[in-house]
Amino acid sequence: MKLGKVIGNVVSTKKEGNITGLKILVVSYLDENLTDTKKTAACIDTMSAGEGDIVLLCSSSSARMTKMTKNVASDNTIVGIVDSVSSGNIYTYKKN
Amino acid sequence: MKLGKVIGNVVSTKKEGNITGLKILVVSYLDENLTDTKKTAACIDTMSAGEGDIVLLCSSSSARMTKMTKNVASDNTIVGIVDSVSSGNIYTYKKN
Amino acid sequence: MKLGKVIGNVVSTKKEGNITGLKILVVSYLDENLTDTKKTAACIDTMSAGEGDIVLLCSSSSARMTKMTKNVASDNTIVGIVDSVSSGNIYTYKKN
Amino acid sequence: MKLGKVIGNVVSTKKEGNITGLKILVVSYLDENLTDTKKTAACIDTMSAGEGDIVLLCSSSSARMTKMTKNVASDNTIVGIVDSVSSGNIYTYKKN
Amino acid sequence: MKLGKVIGNVVSTKKEGNITGLKILVVSYLDENLTDTKKTAACIDTMSAGEGDIVLLCSSSSARMTKMTKNVASDNTIVGIVDSVSSGNIYTYKKN
Repeated sequence: MKLGKVIGNVVSTKKEGNITGLKILVVSYLDENLTDTKKTAACIDTMSAGEGDIVLLCSSSSARMTKMTKNVASDNTIVGIVDSVSSGNIYTYKKN
Repeated sequence: MKLGKVIGNVVSTKKEGNITGLKILVVSYLDENLTDTKKTAACIDTMSAGEGDIVLLCSSSSARMTKMTKNVASDNTIVGIVDSVSSGNIYTYKKN
Repeated sequence: MKLGKVIGNVVSTKKEGNITGLKILVVSYLDENLTDTKKTAACIDTMSAGEGDIVLLCSSSSARMTKMTKNVASDNTIVGIVDSVSSGNIYTYKKN
Repeated sequence: MKLGKVIGNVVSTKKEGNITGLKILVVSYLDENLTDTKKTAACIDTMSAGEGDIVLLCSSSSARMTKMTKNVASDNTIVGIVDSVSSGNIYTYKKN
Repeated sequence: MKLGKVIGNVVSTKKEGNITGLKILVVSYLDENLTDTKKTAACIDTMSAGEGDIVLLCSSSSARMTKMTKNVASDNTIVGIVDSVSSGNIYTYKKN
């Protein structure tokens, strides 16, 4: 998975691939310092994530391994909301 | 998925992989400001998208998760036409 | 899919993954101006493509969605020969 | 697979895709000199790896080919702990 | 597939995903001039390849399309040993 930060929202009324009704968020990938890389993806949200949340992104066919995305045209799914990231005893991120 | 902008059209009369009859569009990937990245893909269009449309692109095996692309040699399918992209209360894109 | 230009040929007599007998071509990816990017892949050819041809490349599991590559260890298959690429009314490529 | 070095830990209490209970580690990809590339991924750990370990990472649908990750939303799984890497007779890495 | 050059060997005694007993080689990707790109992968070897050999690498789910890697956690498998690469009538590589 990749760590990403939710930065926006996509509205698309004409859709194929069983994604009608699913929320699509714009997520920016984070680097090793959890800084925004400015590279983004449009991801199906299974977690009711909000803007600013740090999330776990799952890509490829594994993006379909949730109840909400089974048989769905998702190649990148938000599969978790991150509480914290730590390195040794140091927290590099802690959700408020 | 990725956000892309339709910029062209591919004609190919000799094709394999059950893609005969399907429309193939040239799509340019967009960055976080929805600016053209100059990186392109040739995508199967399931949405009757037109040049200039901002679209949702679905890759890998998930590109086959539409009725039109089931069992088809597509690794990148247009699965939605984008109406708007917003960040907070600000629209970064709104379809005319 | 990606657009590529056939630039060479690979001979390999010791092969696994059911690719014995299949032709493997070296293909260079093209950018948005259909210029050679100098990035290459070795692709299974299902189309009897020749050097100089502009082709459609299909990757990932979708590379196995042709009769010739079913159950074959191909992650990148030539699935079409391109006749033309156009943007608006302008042809950026037209096969001779 | 890719070679990576475990550099951190991700805690996420809200998760989808059958990954509840699985350990997620932050892994930095290594280059040909086994130096940290600063590119990271969040990987499901099937090996009880620890920080500093050099590990084998398996991505795409193959990331689900372990007992622990079958039917799990993992696109990148730690599938081995590396003992040594050698080139000719020279060890470029040897685990203490 | 990609063309790569075998440059090393990985030893890992603790492994998951049915890769126990399989040889894992470090392979460096080659560019269009068959020069080392310094980007490497750790690949399952189905061909008894040796250091210095130029090989065909197959990635994604297609990496599991050999007898030796069926149901195995391999995302990159050596599926051929290259005898020659040519462009027109010129050999850019010929195995000794």
